[in-house]
Amino acid sequence: MREVAIIGVGETRFGEVWDKSFREIGIEAGLAAIENAGITGKEIDALYIGNMSAGKFIDQEHIAPLVADYVGLANANIPATRIEAADASGGLALSHAYMAVSSGVHDVVVVGGAEKMTDVGDVQAKEILAMSADQEWESVFGATFAGLHAMIARRHMHEYGTTREQLAMVAVKNHKHGALNPKAQFRREITLDMVLKAPMVASPLGIFDCAPLSDGSASLVLCPLKIAKKYSDNPIKIASCGQGGDYMALHDRRDICTMNATIIAARKALKYAKKAPKDIDVAEVHDSFTISEILAIEDLGFVKKGEGGKATEDGVTSLNSDISVNTSGGLKAHGQPVGAVGIAQAVEIVLQLRGEADKRQVKNAEVGLTHNVGGTGATAVVHIFEVV
Amino acid sequence: MREVAIIGVGETRFGEVWDKSFREIGIEAGLAAIENAGITGKEIDALYIGNMSAGKFIDQEHIAPLVADYVGLANANIPATRIEAADASGGLALSHAYMAVSSGVHDVVVVGGAEKMTDVGDVQAKEILAMSADQEWESVFGATFAGLHAMIARRHMHEYGTTREQLAMVAVKNHKHGALNPKAQFRREITLDMVLKAPMVASPLGIFDCAPLSDGSASLVLCPLKIAKKYSDNPIKIASCGQGGDYMALHDRRDICTMNATIIAARKALKYAKKAPKDIDVAEVHDSFTISEILAIEDLGFVKKGEGGKATEDGVTSLNSDISVNTSGGLKAHGQPVGAVGIAQAVEIVLQLRGEADKRQVKNAEVGLTHNVGGTGATAVVHIFEVV
Repeated sequence: MREVAIIGVGETRFGEVWDKSFREIGIEAGLAAIENAGITGKEIDALYIGNMSAGKFIDQEHIAPLVADYVGLANANIPATRIEAADASGGLALSHAYMAVSSGVHDVVVVGGAEKMTDVGDVQAKEILAMSADQEWESVFGATFAGLHAMIARRHMHEYGTTREQLAMVAVKNHKHGALNPKAQFRREITLDMVLKAPMVASPLGIFDCAPLSDGSASLVLCPLKIAKKYSDNPIKIASCGQGGDYMALHDRRDICTMNATIIAARKALKYAKKAPKDIDVAEVHDSFTISEILAIEDLGFVKKGEGGKATEDGVTSLNSDISVNTSGGLKAHGQPVGAVGIAQAVEIVLQLRGEADKRQVKNAEVGLTHNVGGTGATAVVHIFEVV
Repeated sequence: MREVAIIGVGETRFGEVWDKSFREIGIEAGLAAIENAGITGKEIDALYIGNMSAGKFIDQEHIAPLVADYVGLANANIPATRIEAADASGGLALSHAYMAVSSGVHDVVVVGGAEKMTDVGDVQAKEILAMSADQEWESVFGATFAGLHAMIARRHMHEYGTTREQLAMVAVKNHKHGALNPKAQFRREITLDMVLKAPMVASPLGIFDCAPLSDGSASLVLCPLKIAKKYSDNPIKIASCGQGGDYMALHDRRDICTMNATIIAARKALKYAKKAPKDIDVAEVHDSFTISEILAIEDLGFVKKGEGGKATEDGVTSLNSDISVNTSGGLKAHGQPVGAVGIAQAVEIVLQLRGEADKRQVKNAEVGLTHNVGGTGATAVVHIFEVV
């Protein structure tokens, strides 16, 4: 297998982008990445797209050739493939683009993620999000995505003494980071008091504990590391990828406070990259809800099981602390266009490892990690990135 | 890259399967393939699923881990990935499963395709099918999937003198083949007269020119050829795979009578497998409509451009003629559960190459081909299979 590098990144602003269509945000991020890589369309061999539910959100399936077409690649008849794994669609698209380059099937591959969630009403969007969980055993009985995570949060509080305040501190931290990210949906700091007094969504999770509905797209250009220097002065190596799965419904899992898919994905990725959790300088983890980040930092091995809340309170995961977690603002403040999340996470890590993260730059960042979860944890994908 | 073999196949009956859910048909085909391969769940490293629109058809996304869960693989936390490319979803899932094994990422991989189309009303199903075309430039103006193919048919008749009768003969042939396939949705022969007098759908295409709405699932087990004999007495080698793309909307293509995606996909697959079109003994091609099969046999190089109608009339593509096309009955008679089609095509070719196709067996079949199209041709995937 060949080593693979990222030579270009692009991203739209995340948020309620009502003046642009799905196609337009796809074009914007795709062209930005192509321009950033300094390549031409003719050099592109294949396109991968991560997207959760264009069918439900914009009444369009078959979106990989659609994006290829609108980015101007249809004339080259390149293979275009869409991958879907709920909110892990982007991460899984990246892992398949990575496999395509590392195996030698393709040389230069563009991989994007896109979702247009705010063209439907909020209730409908939440109904669609719940389709990432088990429809027949969870959604149909009224369990929303927030409701399922609320159960996880309650159990975590019960098992490990995690406090309501500690959950809230995840949101405060990520808003603080998001305020430093010009692409973030929410660029305003919030206080602990604001989170605690916010309207309840599903107890104990209030509105500030939940990542928003977002429109947005992000894109990367990959090529073999061997030829990366031809295009880029600062290629970032994809050191490894790991994917894990789990039962769809929470009731089938032995322990809802542990995401086995994350543990498996992280174990594979760390092993292949020959790294330990302590080697990671900067990580983008999947914080659809504040409790999700607490689970993530535990299951990724950054802190011990049950200590995620305490670690957050202690500031372990703040910018330029022990490990800088969600410097982009995370799903919470950067935004949550579901299919784009996994790619946007990689964009942030590339910017950090290149030293281009401006006010939110992690000092001496050399190794980064992304962690992308589908549904309540039936899919998890972990990638590790390195300065070359 | 390692050579890859198919060691197990499974398929449900195709049709209006109202007594079984999406999950149940997925389990049925998956377990049949696993049993056919003689492996246990513990030996499976990964799952790939081709599906077009579970979101719209059954209100469920994230279906790869769902199927993994229901087939009993969730406990092993295996990676499960869904690929979507409209009606080419199955073929594209196969090509990615093939890549995963050939590159050495995984050893034993199950790849399935599934679609449950008849749990929604016919009009809604047709609206969903049209999402494989360009929603903003075609579907939104009322162009149905049949309507777009009717335009292709009219143009083909105009350009090449293809007759209404020749179109109809595709349906007559495929129903004849389907009558010999116990898994087929339509197991009744039809006459030329029946096709010509059938109710019109979109002129010149009548009801018998259109593949049906179907429920169904099909599944394959793949492993490196090197270890295939351990499991199977008659492993079938996947000799190659090719994928091509094209503009989404018909109006952007230079010639709507030619599917460039098919030409590109076939060229790649034939080259890699070191075969010419004349080497193919049996082929499953994508006949969503009768005109589709005529385009397919031309663009795959079995006959010259413009001569597909005449070739069909001359019986060139009938069972045990020059090249046996759609011995399963094709999408027309075997059925069209969109996401399952590409896998079902491979199942048929494996049965043919194993000599297990019973009454529809092609004599001395040694090389087979599958051709799976997404939408009106924005995606095409071709696989070539060989007796070892």
